[in-house]
Amino acid sequence: MNTTMTARPFDTLLRKEILDIEEYRLKVRPARIKLNQNENPYQLPDSIRREILDRAASLNWSRYPPFVPNEQLESLAAFAGWKREGTLLGNGSNEILQLLFTSVLERGRSVVINQPAFTLYKLLGRSAGAEVVEVMMRPSFTFDVDSLIDAAKRTHASLIVVCSPNNPTGTLLAKEEVVRLLEETGSLVILDEAYVQFAPVSQEQLLREYDRLVILRTFSKAMGAAGLRLGYGLMSPDLARNLDKVKLPYSVNLFTLLAAEILVKRWETFRSWIDRIVAERERLFRELSGIAGVRAYPSAANFLLFETMTRTPAEIFAALLNKGILIRDVSSYPMLQRGLRVSVGTPGENSEFLSALKEAV
Amino acid sequence: MNTTMTARPFDTLLRKEILDIEEYRLKVRPARIKLNQNENPYQLPDSIRREILDRAASLNWSRYPPFVPNEQLESLAAFAGWKREGTLLGNGSNEILQLLFTSVLERGRSVVINQPAFTLYKLLGRSAGAEVVEVMMRPSFTFDVDSLIDAAKRTHASLIVVCSPNNPTGTLLAKEEVVRLLEETGSLVILDEAYVQFAPVSQEQLLREYDRLVILRTFSKAMGAAGLRLGYGLMSPDLARNLDKVKLPYSVNLFTLLAAEILVKRWETFRSWIDRIVAERERLFRELSGIAGVRAYPSAANFLLFETMTRTPAEIFAALLNKGILIRDVSSYPMLQRGLRVSVGTPGENSEFLSALKEAV
Repeated sequence: MNTTMTARPFDTLLRKEILDIEEYRLKVRPARIKLNQNENPYQLPDSIRREILDRAASLNWSRYPPFVPNEQLESLAAFAGWKREGTLLGNGSNEILQLLFTSVLERGRSVVINQPAFTLYKLLGRSAGAEVVEVMMRPSFTFDVDSLIDAAKRTHASLIVVCSPNNPTGTLLAKEEVVRLLEETGSLVILDEAYVQFAPVSQEQLLREYDRLVILRTFSKAMGAAGLRLGYGLMSPDLARNLDKVKLPYSVNLFTLLAAEILVKRWETFRSWIDRIVAERERLFRELSGIAGVRAYPSAANFLLFETMTRTPAEIFAALLNKGILIRDVSSYPMLQRGLRVSVGTPGENSEFLSALKEAV
Repeated sequence: MNTTMTARPFDTLLRKEILDIEEYRLKVRPARIKLNQNENPYQLPDSIRREILDRAASLNWSRYPPFVPNEQLESLAAFAGWKREGTLLGNGSNEILQLLFTSVLERGRSVVINQPAFTLYKLLGRSAGAEVVEVMMRPSFTFDVDSLIDAAKRTHASLIVVCSPNNPTGTLLAKEEVVRLLEETGSLVILDEAYVQFAPVSQEQLLREYDRLVILRTFSKAMGAAGLRLGYGLMSPDLARNLDKVKLPYSVNLFTLLAAEILVKRWETFRSWIDRIVAERERLFRELSGIAGVRAYPSAANFLLFETMTRTPAEIFAALLNKGILIRDVSSYPMLQRGLRVSVGTPGENSEFLSALKEAV
């Protein structure tokens, strides 16, 4: 068979689900003030960076990282307050999320996703061939736990995915609500706590009671290491052992393993960042709420969702970008036709954002 | 539903394929001379390491890497002699391999794998739920291309996977053989060229003629960067565009992106390493062939497969380890009941290995 016989042969070779997914192109927009990816506005102190770089210089880069990064798993587990055997390290929490989706889902199974949400959940569900059941939040962007449970029961869902605090709404799921999802369904419940360090509570203590709960964490937000790609999953040791069977070996490189080891020892640095970011979030919320034509939603994360009544999100986005301020237009998300999301920056960045927004609305 | 009702609930929640896969535990054995993972025995020169570390120190680690690492893709494509739009960067070539398997395979589809082979191929095929059709090499460890083609035709295989030079046999697939796989089947053909820099020829020029060919490359072997996790795939732009839809964003971290950029400019370093390693491989082959009771196979890679007639692989492995020399016992691979694999080390390491082996057999 010659290739000239088939102009685009992978139209048949690729799985239908992959062909059906639309291409996603992120338009890269350089900006002076970057408040679009919920990154940490502060840089890791020189002393921490120096320690990581010096340790990296002393390693042999020609050698694979350890097959099982025992030390890092131990210290992350201790840091998170969970068992080492139930902790998986990932190249970003995305890797653990993908591992869960591909290990649990298949055609004929379903995943319940709270919406609006981080877009990767739906993409991973679709690419696994699963039925993606999207459950909308209540109009005020609180979780509709009854509907999540109904959807999971109705579709015999294998997986329920909730982000708490939720990206992009900032909403926190209460402990009782997590418990209800676990008690009233038979699904595996993924609680993505990417932003939990900015919230008053986290739910890792529930892992002791529920072996169908998985908690995801990342170093990309509060821990100021988005560029290093480090995340982890906390779950029952039995589940971790199964996922580990198909997890790619050596997925976290030597540099990031060093960071994992060193960053968890420097919690005081992150604590002081977090305090500043939370204080600024509250100021942003108050000031946004005081602008006529702006409706801001309370947030337990390092970003705020807001809506503008006078102009469209695209117009506001463009007006801010014109002043060198990049935020996220989330108006294509379910329920968020008027939505914009702004990450909490440094006090100076936030003030610039606020004055630019006041002018724009 | 309470968790007490189901002792191990993921027995039903995980996909059958995942549950069926056995756990794999690598026994970590510290050794003075490490010849078990086909790593490069040489370390990246200080000047290169320093350049990467200095550039890393100048970046903001709190920020995500670029959504599309355009510069690195451009320079890797130029380095490999292929189109930028047909180049995908991975967290090791493993990531691209996994992306291909999960995008092409599903229950009811099949993948043809040349055996003996890198164990990840079969694991990925099984975990995708595909039928894994294993085709044995000829007794002298040359490729049985007729049987590979027959198997692909018979099972309407979506994928054929061949490693060339093949791990763990060292065998090189000739250009005409690759062409036959492409011309005589309708399958997507993955040619894993992880070790190609040690071989006399590579096959990237065939990409211009066959859009069903995918070539995988890595920085873990000749390029001396196993610890940094960097690999790439070369393929038709149409296929790359489809895979990119479901590839995890930011899977290569800022440190490794810097390495990608800097290492491709330092080919003269790798060239001189490769010359030394190839010369040592030939010496090892000659000397191994001269040991009574040892049968060595010619190799186009940076390792050699050999069999011992007088003692079992486990005995030889233990005797060498006892002298601080770690090689790979591959006797559990198909066809290799008497097989051992040794990576080519430095001249000193190779000489120590040879004398220890002479004593052991």
